[in-house]
Amino acid sequence: MSSDEGIEIDPQTIKELELLEAALSDVDTEIIAKQYLMTKDIFAQRHNTISKIPKFWAVVFNNAQIDLEAAITPGDREIFEHALTGIEVVRPEIPASAKLTDAGLSGYGEPRSVTLRFQFSENPWFSDSVLEKTLYYRYSKDGEAGLVSEPIKINWKAGKDVTEGLTDAAYAFWQAQKKSASQNLDGVVSGDARKARDAAAKKLPEYKTVVDTLENKVEGAISFFNFFSYRGRWTSAAESKEAKAELDARRQAALAGKPVADKEEEEEDDDEEMPAEAEAETFPAGHEVAVTIAEDIYPGAIDYFMSETLDSDDELDGLDLDDDSEDDDDVEMS
Amino acid sequence: MSSDEGIEIDPQTIKELELLEAALSDVDTEIIAKQYLMTKDIFAQRHNTISKIPKFWAVVFNNAQIDLEAAITPGDREIFEHALTGIEVVRPEIPASAKLTDAGLSGYGEPRSVTLRFQFSENPWFSDSVLEKTLYYRYSKDGEAGLVSEPIKINWKAGKDVTEGLTDAAYAFWQAQKKSASQNLDGVVSGDARKARDAAAKKLPEYKTVVDTLENKVEGAISFFNFFSYRGRWTSAAESKEAKAELDARRQAALAGKPVADKEEEEEDDDEEMPAEAEAETFPAGHEVAVTIAEDIYPGAIDYFMSETLDSDDELDGLDLDDDSEDDDDVEMS
Repeated sequence: MSSDEGIEIDPQTIKELELLEAALSDVDTEIIAKQYLMTKDIFAQRHNTISKIPKFWAVVFNNAQIDLEAAITPGDREIFEHALTGIEVVRPEIPASAKLTDAGLSGYGEPRSVTLRFQFSENPWFSDSVLEKTLYYRYSKDGEAGLVSEPIKINWKAGKDVTEGLTDAAYAFWQAQKKSASQNLDGVVSGDARKARDAAAKKLPEYKTVVDTLENKVEGAISFFNFFSYRGRWTSAAESKEAKAELDARRQAALAGKPVADKEEEEEDDDEEMPAEAEAETFPAGHEVAVTIAEDIYPGAIDYFMSETLDSDDELDGLDLDDDSEDDDDVEMS
Repeated sequence: MSSDEGIEIDPQTIKELELLEAALSDVDTEIIAKQYLMTKDIFAQRHNTISKIPKFWAVVFNNAQIDLEAAITPGDREIFEHALTGIEVVRPEIPASAKLTDAGLSGYGEPRSVTLRFQFSENPWFSDSVLEKTLYYRYSKDGEAGLVSEPIKINWKAGKDVTEGLTDAAYAFWQAQKKSASQNLDGVVSGDARKARDAAAKKLPEYKTVVDTLENKVEGAISFFNFFSYRGRWTSAAESKEAKAELDARRQAALAGKPVADKEEEEEDDDEEMPAEAEAETFPAGHEVAVTIAEDIYPGAIDYFMSETLDSDDELDGLDLDDDSEDDDDVEMS
């Protein structure tokens, strides 16, 4: 395609494309809910079977590194190998009682919100037996949307913190924001209110600690455990509800062919400093990594596991019960 | 993970994993059907909107090259840019009358079978206005499963064949096999019968033409248009029906905890020649490319298109009606 050609697209056509994208995205979201309800029981059974296989999840994460696009440091790998006993993926806004037949988008909360539950055996690194990270899909009033989350505390044993203080610093920063009335973490903040929150955040000593700790890191040496501190562009449930309602109203108007007033443009100021939450983000790929774990690695775990441990050209899509038992008795991991 | 550690897995546990994989694969297949029924009307609308945008699909295929993992040659690109006016994806074994409520696996045929319909304007390369490739998901009696397809004819204009005779040769080979009684393309062939078919195929002069034409190709210079000649490991509908029934029976037995007799092992003979159909395959990545087009490129086409043509950090997941019209009036493709 030569670069001197221009494609002119009518603004009306672009609006149509956006409405179509929104409709397709709604279907994708509903499919997440349907698939969750259809696979729940199978995954519960799998959980039992997997528990009979030592190091199952360590092997899976090892083999999934390319898809994860995240560094799993040698320190992380050691923890996974010695102590990671199980993983569960839960959709917290889909009630346990939900049925496939009522799997319409209106039936319950946001299917994209997700809880990743990592289970650990007694180990030398931390005292927690479960590290649970919940990421909420939220819309902000200034037009962003994505997974946001509260940093969680990992109770590292003395001298054993593979994140070298980063998860502690991120957690302390979050707690300091929570205590500070000016932060309004549970409220609706857009435009100037968000800017004011940000300015106040930067004044907290806990903010400086996070940024300093991050600065001292060698690039690429960020432990996977910093994922538990991911926060994203924090947006409260209250703000998300309002923003989603506005979005829906604009979409209904557009679908009805009514003129949709352009939302006030955010002034883009290139000289603007990076917001505190971006500068103090310990795990910038948190959204993508959570989606990859929930939608690829967790459902495809057996494939990831087999790809390394079994020397086979089995068609795993079909059921293959033809294994030569002699071969399977002693599977060596290379 | 050190390489000197072995993981021993009980054969019974492996059988459990395989049953779980089969159950998850069934859900995936059903989800394909549900998503198809839920998006059909949206894609029909999109088809209309897209028709107003020149070179839409050429831009999409250009941007999708990495995901396609297939060479799009400069010759292909020229054709796409000048003549590709539309793409449609149809699931031929899901009847047009199917409803979401009866979207169970038993309700209709194989949801993974797929028709890719490429529409072209009058052009200097070939006289066809539609190139339609149907790939059937089929099980063979010797345990394979995947998408298979009949090579289709492209009516190239004189001196304009960008595949340099390959699609013609593949089509002629297929037709010769069809005419030869010994090939039994519509029948059930496993074990020795498949070997006999293969030996007979290798004696056809049309087989030799395909192999010779392929040998003269520079690696990586295989045109995308050879996708229309992809055949895979050809298996008839009749054989697939029998093989699937056997597979289901074995699975039911395994689920009921009954001992499942190991299927006779195929003798693996490393010295064996490559089968005729593999040696004469014009587009080895056909299965993967078809799935990528149907499940990624086609549903995500607007994103692929936008990623090149619109300079935006729009969150396309949410609906963004905030475009600055001045920017959109004249979108330049770089």
